[in-house]
Amino acid sequence: MYEKLLRHPFTSATGREKCSAQDLVVAMLDVELALAAEQERLDMLPKGTTETLGEYLTTEVFDIEALADDTAKGGNAAIPFVKQAKAALPDTLKPYFHRGATSQDIVDSALMLLLKPRLARCRRLLTASIDDGRSLMVAHRDTTMIGRTLMQQALPITFGAKVGQWAWGLHQAGERLDDVLTGGLYVQFGGAVGVHSGLDDAGVAIMTGMASRLGLAEPWLPWHTDRQPIHSLGCAIDAVAVAAEKVALDVALLTQTEIGELAEPAEAGVGESSSMPHKRNPVGCARIRAAARQIHAALSVLTNAGAQPLERGLGEWHAEWAPMLDAALLLEGALETLQHLLSGLEVNDQVMARNLGVTGGAIMAEPAARVLQSILSNDEARRVAREASENARRAGVDYAEALLAHEDVAGSAIDADALRQAVRPESYIGSSRCLVERVIERLR
Amino acid sequence: MYEKLLRHPFTSATGREKCSAQDLVVAMLDVELALAAEQERLDMLPKGTTETLGEYLTTEVFDIEALADDTAKGGNAAIPFVKQAKAALPDTLKPYFHRGATSQDIVDSALMLLLKPRLARCRRLLTASIDDGRSLMVAHRDTTMIGRTLMQQALPITFGAKVGQWAWGLHQAGERLDDVLTGGLYVQFGGAVGVHSGLDDAGVAIMTGMASRLGLAEPWLPWHTDRQPIHSLGCAIDAVAVAAEKVALDVALLTQTEIGELAEPAEAGVGESSSMPHKRNPVGCARIRAAARQIHAALSVLTNAGAQPLERGLGEWHAEWAPMLDAALLLEGALETLQHLLSGLEVNDQVMARNLGVTGGAIMAEPAARVLQSILSNDEARRVAREASENARRAGVDYAEALLAHEDVAGSAIDADALRQAVRPESYIGSSRCLVERVIERLR
Amino acid sequence: MYEKLLRHPFTSATGREKCSAQDLVVAMLDVELALAAEQERLDMLPKGTTETLGEYLTTEVFDIEALADDTAKGGNAAIPFVKQAKAALPDTLKPYFHRGATSQDIVDSALMLLLKPRLARCRRLLTASIDDGRSLMVAHRDTTMIGRTLMQQALPITFGAKVGQWAWGLHQAGERLDDVLTGGLYVQFGGAVGVHSGLDDAGVAIMTGMASRLGLAEPWLPWHTDRQPIHSLGCAIDAVAVAAEKVALDVALLTQTEIGELAEPAEAGVGESSSMPHKRNPVGCARIRAAARQIHAALSVLTNAGAQPLERGLGEWHAEWAPMLDAALLLEGALETLQHLLSGLEVNDQVMARNLGVTGGAIMAEPAARVLQSILSNDEARRVAREASENARRAGVDYAEALLAHEDVAGSAIDADALRQAVRPESYIGSSRCLVERVIERLR
Amino acid sequence: MYEKLLRHPFTSATGREKCSAQDLVVAMLDVELALAAEQERLDMLPKGTTETLGEYLTTEVFDIEALADDTAKGGNAAIPFVKQAKAALPDTLKPYFHRGATSQDIVDSALMLLLKPRLARCRRLLTASIDDGRSLMVAHRDTTMIGRTLMQQALPITFGAKVGQWAWGLHQAGERLDDVLTGGLYVQFGGAVGVHSGLDDAGVAIMTGMASRLGLAEPWLPWHTDRQPIHSLGCAIDAVAVAAEKVALDVALLTQTEIGELAEPAEAGVGESSSMPHKRNPVGCARIRAAARQIHAALSVLTNAGAQPLERGLGEWHAEWAPMLDAALLLEGALETLQHLLSGLEVNDQVMARNLGVTGGAIMAEPAARVLQSILSNDEARRVAREASENARRAGVDYAEALLAHEDVAGSAIDADALRQAVRPESYIGSSRCLVERVIERLR
Repeated sequence: MYEKLLRHPFTSATGREKCSAQDLVVAMLDVELALAAEQERLDMLPKGTTETLGEYLTTEVFDIEALADDTAKGGNAAIPFVKQAKAALPDTLKPYFHRGATSQDIVDSALMLLLKPRLARCRRLLTASIDDGRSLMVAHRDTTMIGRTLMQQALPITFGAKVGQWAWGLHQAGERLDDVLTGGLYVQFGGAVGVHSGLDDAGVAIMTGMASRLGLAEPWLPWHTDRQPIHSLGCAIDAVAVAAEKVALDVALLTQTEIGELAEPAEAGVGESSSMPHKRNPVGCARIRAAARQIHAALSVLTNAGAQPLERGLGEWHAEWAPMLDAALLLEGALETLQHLLSGLEVNDQVMARNLGVTGGAIMAEPAARVLQSILSNDEARRVAREASENARRAGVDYAEALLAHEDVAGSAIDADALRQAVRPESYIGSSRCLVERVIERLR
Repeated sequence: MYEKLLRHPFTSATGREKCSAQDLVVAMLDVELALAAEQERLDMLPKGTTETLGEYLTTEVFDIEALADDTAKGGNAAIPFVKQAKAALPDTLKPYFHRGATSQDIVDSALMLLLKPRLARCRRLLTASIDDGRSLMVAHRDTTMIGRTLMQQALPITFGAKVGQWAWGLHQAGERLDDVLTGGLYVQFGGAVGVHSGLDDAGVAIMTGMASRLGLAEPWLPWHTDRQPIHSLGCAIDAVAVAAEKVALDVALLTQTEIGELAEPAEAGVGESSSMPHKRNPVGCARIRAAARQIHAALSVLTNAGAQPLERGLGEWHAEWAPMLDAALLLEGALETLQHLLSGLEVNDQVMARNLGVTGGAIMAEPAARVLQSILSNDEARRVAREASENARRAGVDYAEALLAHEDVAGSAIDADALRQAVRPESYIGSSRCLVERVIERLR
Repeated sequence: MYEKLLRHPFTSATGREKCSAQDLVVAMLDVELALAAEQERLDMLPKGTTETLGEYLTTEVFDIEALADDTAKGGNAAIPFVKQAKAALPDTLKPYFHRGATSQDIVDSALMLLLKPRLARCRRLLTASIDDGRSLMVAHRDTTMIGRTLMQQALPITFGAKVGQWAWGLHQAGERLDDVLTGGLYVQFGGAVGVHSGLDDAGVAIMTGMASRLGLAEPWLPWHTDRQPIHSLGCAIDAVAVAAEKVALDVALLTQTEIGELAEPAEAGVGESSSMPHKRNPVGCARIRAAARQIHAALSVLTNAGAQPLERGLGEWHAEWAPMLDAALLLEGALETLQHLLSGLEVNDQVMARNLGVTGGAIMAEPAARVLQSILSNDEARRVAREASENARRAGVDYAEALLAHEDVAGSAIDADALRQAVRPESYIGSSRCLVERVIERLR
Repeated sequence: MYEKLLRHPFTSATGREKCSAQDLVVAMLDVELALAAEQERLDMLPKGTTETLGEYLTTEVFDIEALADDTAKGGNAAIPFVKQAKAALPDTLKPYFHRGATSQDIVDSALMLLLKPRLARCRRLLTASIDDGRSLMVAHRDTTMIGRTLMQQALPITFGAKVGQWAWGLHQAGERLDDVLTGGLYVQFGGAVGVHSGLDDAGVAIMTGMASRLGLAEPWLPWHTDRQPIHSLGCAIDAVAVAAEKVALDVALLTQTEIGELAEPAEAGVGESSSMPHKRNPVGCARIRAAARQIHAALSVLTNAGAQPLERGLGEWHAEWAPMLDAALLLEGALETLQHLLSGLEVNDQVMARNLGVTGGAIMAEPAARVLQSILSNDEARRVAREASENARRAGVDYAEALLAHEDVAGSAIDADALRQAVRPESYIGSSRCLVERVIERLR
């Protein structure tokens, strides 16, 4: 299908390999067998039933194409799945399969089983990116560069401090993902109307036991139309996407030809333009940004479908499935790209230094004016600072020299060394080093 | 992949068959050959080049799996596609392939080639649904039912008038789709930076000629970062989705067990619940609603990525591809379901009649009060109308009889026949018939 | 402005009273004074400066209309605010005001000051709703009603269990709001480029001290373009909105004329229709649902603007302001409505009982078939269960009697009492009571 | 309210002045009087009734604060509005007011009355921006600049061609706005359930007549829950927003300090930074982008609420009001800013020329290689073209001279003039001039 060329390139190949239709079927089967096992444990099924069911229900039993066709009819994949499974069972075993369950129990739980390793891998990729960020912070603790606000040159920062911002954003998003991973991927088990019809209170024990068997979190109630767990999950995925997207946006901007402070890792075949041999496109950034935009839209499906009617949704639930899986795999893809990007990021500190000079010193007018106030009034000091910057840019000389040569300064009692020192960008990086220390401290 | 069970069931199988990765490759090839053919026509390539290119570039030349892998690296499918194509060509022909083009030219045009037959089929399905709607309008021109506002019983309408609303919504959306189909699916051809570099003004002629060869609309300018055409396309798809979603919402509500005025067409295996044999789930409605929600999200990708930077996007363009195809195929699926739904919709007019009575006549209190004003004051008339409705509901008698039996009415000079007539719901359907006529007139 | 009639009716009047333009100005002033106070504490300003600043800068100093006009020019409210403030200060004090700050420091912090009491009130309203839910759970622990899936009658539940779902959803969302309230509403202070230019490491101490003075959380870094805090805030607000919207959706559905199991609290002037005196519109539900939809859209602004460029956004930041305040006030309004709704909800248990019978017992076919299996084969038992339900509905008799009268049952050795017991809905409520206990236990 | 400082700065002051709560009340009154006038025309009301109603119902009659308070109770502004109006009428006239209407008739129609002049002004602003764009195109028909794809320098274009893209985007969006303006702002009139209850077929005539009196489009059917008109309206507004946002994005990027090809019009007090005197922030771009993002979210409300239940929405309709007005006023504000931006845009063609050289000629490597092929093989020509570009950048010399000085070229039979000509960017602008002609031709 078109997805292979139009969506999958933004997702993780590793992730896709574990999220085939077949994998979903296996996950549904795992859920059914965990259900049977719990019922067997509670003496509701004959001893050995689960094992026997498992022997009959090998993956070969299931015809994926037929499943896909019949999913449209039944409304979800569990309905034909249960039919195919029962068809493969002897009559005596049929009543023991899917007992007390509803299709949403199977699908929701199976989706959580698919998502868990994906989100766990996302967490590992995030950690690796943060580690790469830490290395960049350490290496560029003192690399002065211009800070830019509204995309205009503003005042100096260090590249370390910028990476600190990236890493801290990733870290915060990671904590939200941790919350989901450690206790937010719940088993679903509630039966037809969410109250374990026919099982009575044993249903609660089964729900709890299934969670434990499947390695999923134990819900306090079935959550067929309480989609808070899905909302949290979607928000956490989106938070990580935003954190990655922020890095990609900054890298893309700093990679612009005229700015050139950063470059994506050079790699054969990546970022080439067939028509323009000189180009190296920031394809990694483009991929991350494309993925993030699609993840935001996936979240909008989840929020707009968050309120589901009565005991089971009428389309709202169905709308969640693909966007949820898409979002997880797009995130995994984006984080692979991010990690690659950060681990091999080219940092051109000479260009950073050069760019600090392009305004002829105007970026340092404020500290210059402060020193000039020793010999001039407040307003005059500002005027001179501004004029000198224009002179510097026109004449292509250092801002300090232009200041000292200004007619209102030359021959005055100004402390030339103090002035030279004050207008050095690297002496005006504020708390940049301190902020880097703070981030490193917390990321340890 | 998981899409097979989680997204595809909401899309059209017919559509999916024409939108494989292979189909996209064929479409890209068609675009390249149209480009060559135009250049040949303008004597920029030796005569016969296009035919020779076509002979070399059979679909077997392309390795879809390798294409998919390399798409991630290059950023879009055209980059590895061009490489694979050139690898299959003799050196002498290589310079004639993809000449003056950029990857976005190929991908955008190919997507339009895939979309065109899908949207055309959507239009046909829409027309069929409107036709089914017309039949329902004719059949139910006089079928009185209760109108409901804020989901409360309000005043009578006819089922014909309700279908008229559906049909008119579908019709309006169809006109928006027509606008896109007749002149909004453009060829893309602008070269590296959208100004036909290296081709000069001939580029414009080539662009125009390619449109004609490919059966696409001729753009006035290349539209690499002018995404108005994509915005219009996305909006039109969403408009149709909303029109279908409205029908699905109404049918779902009127199918509720306690209301029971409509039922989806009965079909073996559709809407069954494995655990509850008595149920017939409105699965068609659920599918349409699930598709529509995902289409709204796809549109949100397109609107938020509508403004693309400079001469080519950095992720914004890439983000469009999958949502755009998803949206078209989800719409085609939803319209198949809608057409099936409308063509076989079960209309229970007896239940409609019964539901007109469940308030004991309260819905007719207003016309009742009007007649009572011949013997009572305005306020008293309203009071009696209300009390009689409560009496009717409690005693389970007709509202008219309850009115006539009310102590303030019995024995009065009231015109009993006029009262009986006034409180008949079918005499209070306003312009329902007229509105149906209007719709039928315009849909002709 | 139009907002008064078109948006404000969905927001909280209590909240709006604390969120005037004037309140925003006061909050900005509080932020500036906290900044000065911290600088004074660190001997960066003469002792007493803050107090003197506060004496000059009374609220009368600020011309709100001029502020509004100039906000458009400067790009944000802090720019003209600082100008107006400085104009009111003697020259000696001017340099001590806004020292080392940037406009985003002031606006972000001031917004958090406005939001904090609003979200705290949302939390209290949520708690009150949960308390009302607990009362409903206790009162309706045993109130049997039909559970509905895909809006079709399915199997029995209790109304207590349904309220348990509502309460648990509200509880989970409340925990997300708690996370934001207890540590997620940060002070903003980073200076021009987020690294405390000119203040050096003291900037960090000032940031920390300001948080404490203002009662806001202390950020680990300035967050000018790290919008994770805003993302979390937006997600938490949306989560609560979804939880409220779920209740409103259920109430709206169960209030439908033909279902009639619930009604919004009766109140003079609420939900009236001028044209239809018999109607009582579920206006509370409509208001909650309207608010929730607007909140979802506000979140979509925040997620799509989550990645902000370099050291300060170029429109992304500006886009957050109104949606963030809108969302908070819409939520507060929705929660007021929800609390009112739940505290006075009319529960018609007789109607719930009646609705359990409308399918003629078909909802109990499954347990009926189980008992029939003592005398019939599995398949025959199901057939008889189904036929009896049709007979019951047609003849208007009890399902149990219809079963006993069925030709394949009458005269058989069936245990009539067991059958009668099995098809009583109230005996088939699964874990409903247990689930209610669980919720009550955790909400304690 | 906070809107004054947080939302209104992005909207149009001119627009806001016409969209007060008072203006909405006046519009509702206009709708009611048009309704009465039509009924009077059809002899359903005594002659002179409308005039008398108008005399009683001066704007002083309405208490806006009370209206606002009661809107929450009734669910929409028309309910208390009708009550206040009736309270001001003598008993004899009361029945003639709001006769046969429902509150949605009044609110929907009044909103269209508010929107019409706003969208008309948006159209005029758009036309003015397109005119400014035409002037820029003419002035910069030959101004060569670098085209940038994925934000990297690619190949030359002209600034005229870039403006052509902007203008064409605005033009296409303008045509969508025209469609809405000329026939898409409908009167609403359908009565309680959309079928003119109590009025019968005369309702249709009244609907038609009201449209004519109010200067609104005549709907074919009432559209209480057919929201296609609102969908079209929202899409058209968003399309224009996207077209403006594209210009703002490009200008913001080309205004970056290191690029400096464009600057927003200089204006006292606009774009200043209080902390950094050297800065001139592209505040206009920020404002447009902030507005556009909020408009996209408004559209997402409209699409997600597009399907409305049965004969009247339950929150879906209510959710539309504020986003729709917000969107129109944000657009009007954005277009004012855009027009200001385009009319005074500073175009630095010398900087454009300078930036064409920053890659040392690498951008012209392709045409260079073509000429070199007269003396070198294909591959060697490419290598020399690349090496010469590196030499040029390092030595700071012209690319042509670096090529001629290359060891594989110097002394060869190369046509030096042809080479010099080929690598002049201004000779490689493709169809730029032709595209400008095309746009100008169509915009005439």
